[in-house]
Amino acid sequence: MATSEASVTRIMVAVNESTIKGYPHASISSKGAFEWTLQKIVMSNTSGFKLLFLHVQVPDEDGFDDMDSIYASPEDFKSLKSRDRARGLRLLEFFVTRCHEIGVACEAWIKKGDPKEVICHEVKRIQPDLLVLGSRGLGPFQRVFVGTVSEFCVKHAECPVVTIKRRLDETPQDPVDD
Amino acid sequence: MATSEASVTRIMVAVNESTIKGYPHASISSKGAFEWTLQKIVMSNTSGFKLLFLHVQVPDEDGFDDMDSIYASPEDFKSLKSRDRARGLRLLEFFVTRCHEIGVACEAWIKKGDPKEVICHEVKRIQPDLLVLGSRGLGPFQRVFVGTVSEFCVKHAECPVVTIKRRLDETPQDPVDD
Repeated sequence: MATSEASVTRIMVAVNESTIKGYPHASISSKGAFEWTLQKIVMSNTSGFKLLFLHVQVPDEDGFDDMDSIYASPEDFKSLKSRDRARGLRLLEFFVTRCHEIGVACEAWIKKGDPKEVICHEVKRIQPDLLVLGSRGLGPFQRVFVGTVSEFCVKHAECPVVTIKRRLDETPQDPVDD
Repeated sequence: MATSEASVTRIMVAVNESTIKGYPHASISSKGAFEWTLQKIVMSNTSGFKLLFLHVQVPDEDGFDDMDSIYASPEDFKSLKSRDRARGLRLLEFFVTRCHEIGVACEAWIKKGDPKEVICHEVKRIQPDLLVLGSRGLGPFQRVFVGTVSEFCVKHAECPVVTIKRRLDETPQDPVDD
């Protein structure tokens, strides 16, 4: 049965990079959320869905990643920005390529800011049918320190939200990492 | 493409009766959660999903519904119980019939107890891929008094949970009703 554009379900998936050293590209929880969406929701009905990948880059306020860098000219900052951009694009490329392979329509874009605020703002603007978020599944003690994007979005996003917890066997040594 | 039992996505939908006087059968929010699941997730892929309807009946502690009844013999209580049972069955029949009409596999059952506790217990026992809950979308002030099943289940159910808020144009005169 052909599916018209009007009856396509638009699922927004918020994706981010891993914070684990030496583990580049998508975080374990982002990939988990994406795979869950494909395996449990989309399945063989590839023409029934459109995936919308939103990556929110956090402005690097403390610059810890660049502790050993020396900034001597405005050019140095420009190259920093273009490096951020390249990393964001590489992240989105992973998801878009996978969708292309299995034949699911998708769109992907990057925004800068506080992830929880930006995600809710983009939901309001884009009005997806469902927002899928990966979650580290942290306990209450850990949550106090790292905050959780998913908890905020479940409360404030203006569309149905589903949170996919990271599997226990995928938790890195430091569970706050991902 | 034929879908084997192993790759079928099992979605549990918790359903309840309306509390609105003169509005029998399923609550607005239950029906909303069910229709969202069909329209946005199942769509034409009817063989890819199995819906599991759980109805939790709350023991009628205060008996307000029976203020004008007179209990003269043990038989009167038996008839009360069988009336509860009949109401629960009628509720489930609505959802099962609808599934049958569109060709989606389903199962339905009734439990008694505190809805939020029972739903989380049944999730643990049945292990669905997704739990869909209707919600009245009450504000923080209203929530203090009526409690919310969905908020509890989002935190405690051991599977992904999605909450479908009642549409604004479907809100009854008293928003706590449904």
